[in-house]
Amino acid sequence: MLYVVWHRVPDTDAITSAIVYSHYLNQIGHQSIPLALWEANKETLFVLSQAWATVPDINNELVEWSTIALVDHNESAQSIPNIKNYILHSVIDHHKIGDLETGYPLILRFEPVASTNSILYKMYKEANITIDKRIATLMLGGILSDTLHFRSPTTTDFDRLIVPILADIAQINDIEWFAMQMFAAKSDLGDISTYTLIKDIDAKDFTFSGRRSLISCIETTNPDYCLSRKSDIIDTIAKIKQEEWYDFVLFCIVDIIKERNTTIVQSDVEEKILKDVFDAHTVDGLADLGNRISRKKTIVPPLEEKLV
Amino acid sequence: MLYVVWHRVPDTDAITSAIVYSHYLNQIGHQSIPLALWEANKETLFVLSQAWATVPDINNELVEWSTIALVDHNESAQSIPNIKNYILHSVIDHHKIGDLETGYPLILRFEPVASTNSILYKMYKEANITIDKRIATLMLGGILSDTLHFRSPTTTDFDRLIVPILADIAQINDIEWFAMQMFAAKSDLGDISTYTLIKDIDAKDFTFSGRRSLISCIETTNPDYCLSRKSDIIDTIAKIKQEEWYDFVLFCIVDIIKERNTTIVQSDVEEKILKDVFDAHTVDGLADLGNRISRKKTIVPPLEEKLV
Repeated sequence: MLYVVWHRVPDTDAITSAIVYSHYLNQIGHQSIPLALWEANKETLFVLSQAWATVPDINNELVEWSTIALVDHNESAQSIPNIKNYILHSVIDHHKIGDLETGYPLILRFEPVASTNSILYKMYKEANITIDKRIATLMLGGILSDTLHFRSPTTTDFDRLIVPILADIAQINDIEWFAMQMFAAKSDLGDISTYTLIKDIDAKDFTFSGRRSLISCIETTNPDYCLSRKSDIIDTIAKIKQEEWYDFVLFCIVDIIKERNTTIVQSDVEEKILKDVFDAHTVDGLADLGNRISRKKTIVPPLEEKLV
Repeated sequence: MLYVVWHRVPDTDAITSAIVYSHYLNQIGHQSIPLALWEANKETLFVLSQAWATVPDINNELVEWSTIALVDHNESAQSIPNIKNYILHSVIDHHKIGDLETGYPLILRFEPVASTNSILYKMYKEANITIDKRIATLMLGGILSDTLHFRSPTTTDFDRLIVPILADIAQINDIEWFAMQMFAAKSDLGDISTYTLIKDIDAKDFTFSGRRSLISCIETTNPDYCLSRKSDIIDTIAKIKQEEWYDFVLFCIVDIIKERNTTIVQSDVEEKILKDVFDAHTVDGLADLGNRISRKKTIVPPLEEKLV
């Protein structure tokens, strides 16, 4: 059995691409299932329900030395624990390449498009595999989520090209309406703990010139929800930094509608970084990062470049 | 301009795939040329002459921060010096993945097939680009070289499938005859220095659990040529180890016809490694490594696994 693994704190593109890639692998003769190690968020649950797809059960029992495929990530910190103890069949991803290293050749398919599902769309076409309504809905959900329906600067011409084709197969007439339902589902954060808000909605670990950091991005149609919890968020970030050895933590509130990033600034350390790297001033614990709404394209690269 | 870079000590697959990939890139709208940093061997020159392809001129003047693509390799030790100072557009490769790391997403296309040209064949088909006689000859040369015309255990069904298709386009009726001409050209090592024989024919650097090593593989139809220079090779390896800080050097004489690997053993260090890893006994400075004729498939993986 070949297990398709999505990343920690999975977003919609991660989970839908795992289901889609597993389907693809089965079409070309493998026996494959998506392996749920981390739970789906509400946006993903909405997309899965629209695709009549079942949510894979959480499974923490995978035996070491099983064969796995990774989607939507390649860095060990974002993946299954002890990844060196599994056999990697393939990686399908659209992120920068990190610490991936193997003792044997494998399949890699990386393209700088906006979502892993965009790469999978290409692979279906190349292999002449039919994209049915269910698969089209999953792919569409992944692409709309990662591009914020083309609002994100990561969006490429190829993503724009295939979205209407997929919407047609999925029989979704109003794509923006579908996207807004997704974003509303994602924005319904409900009664979650502040820790969960910071660590488990959409957070990723990075190391910049040896400095361990967490960059948490809440994409929302309702930024006031997070802003109303600001002081609590600042206190919890302080605790997380101390207990989990982070050098700095950025908590970015991304307003999907206005396409603005307001970042909560916990201490002088973050304030200095935001000033040095983004020339952003902190006022009352908040820094306006303007239209930097893509962690991958407009937040991480300047940090990579300027933090030395 | 997008420069396509082959690896140090280039073999036929490296150079032909650089020419082919550059052609592919130009077909899809890039402006690209292959960049010759290291010279072609006689086998490659034979294939290029059959394809009426010109040998790219050696160019050491590439400006840093140019955009480059890598073919047939991905590890920095095998690539252009200071690779971190170039912008990577893409990597097309069939080797294990090493220390490749970027701050931005890029195109990766890796498949565990026998040659980089086999991946390129797939990419031409996917993009609906015509493979003409010249390109077919180059691809065929690369695949026959890396598979030793299907003798190597790296050969996959896909490589076997496409070779007759390419030979047909290339108007080469007798594939084995063509391959034998290639191998004879490669075996004509002429009046080269022992240092060149060890370092510049087909040698690659590896690090196994911190131990720096050089694995040199001479694929030949005439093993007696190397065997007749054994004592000279042993002396020169001793010098190379001292001057270039290698922990061990393996010099493998691969008899293409008989499909046997006879390895020259310079010291107790190599003798112990060959005994421990391959259970091979050294007699009179030579160890019989049996049918381990593929560095990638049957020599490096056991070293990776057992040298701790």
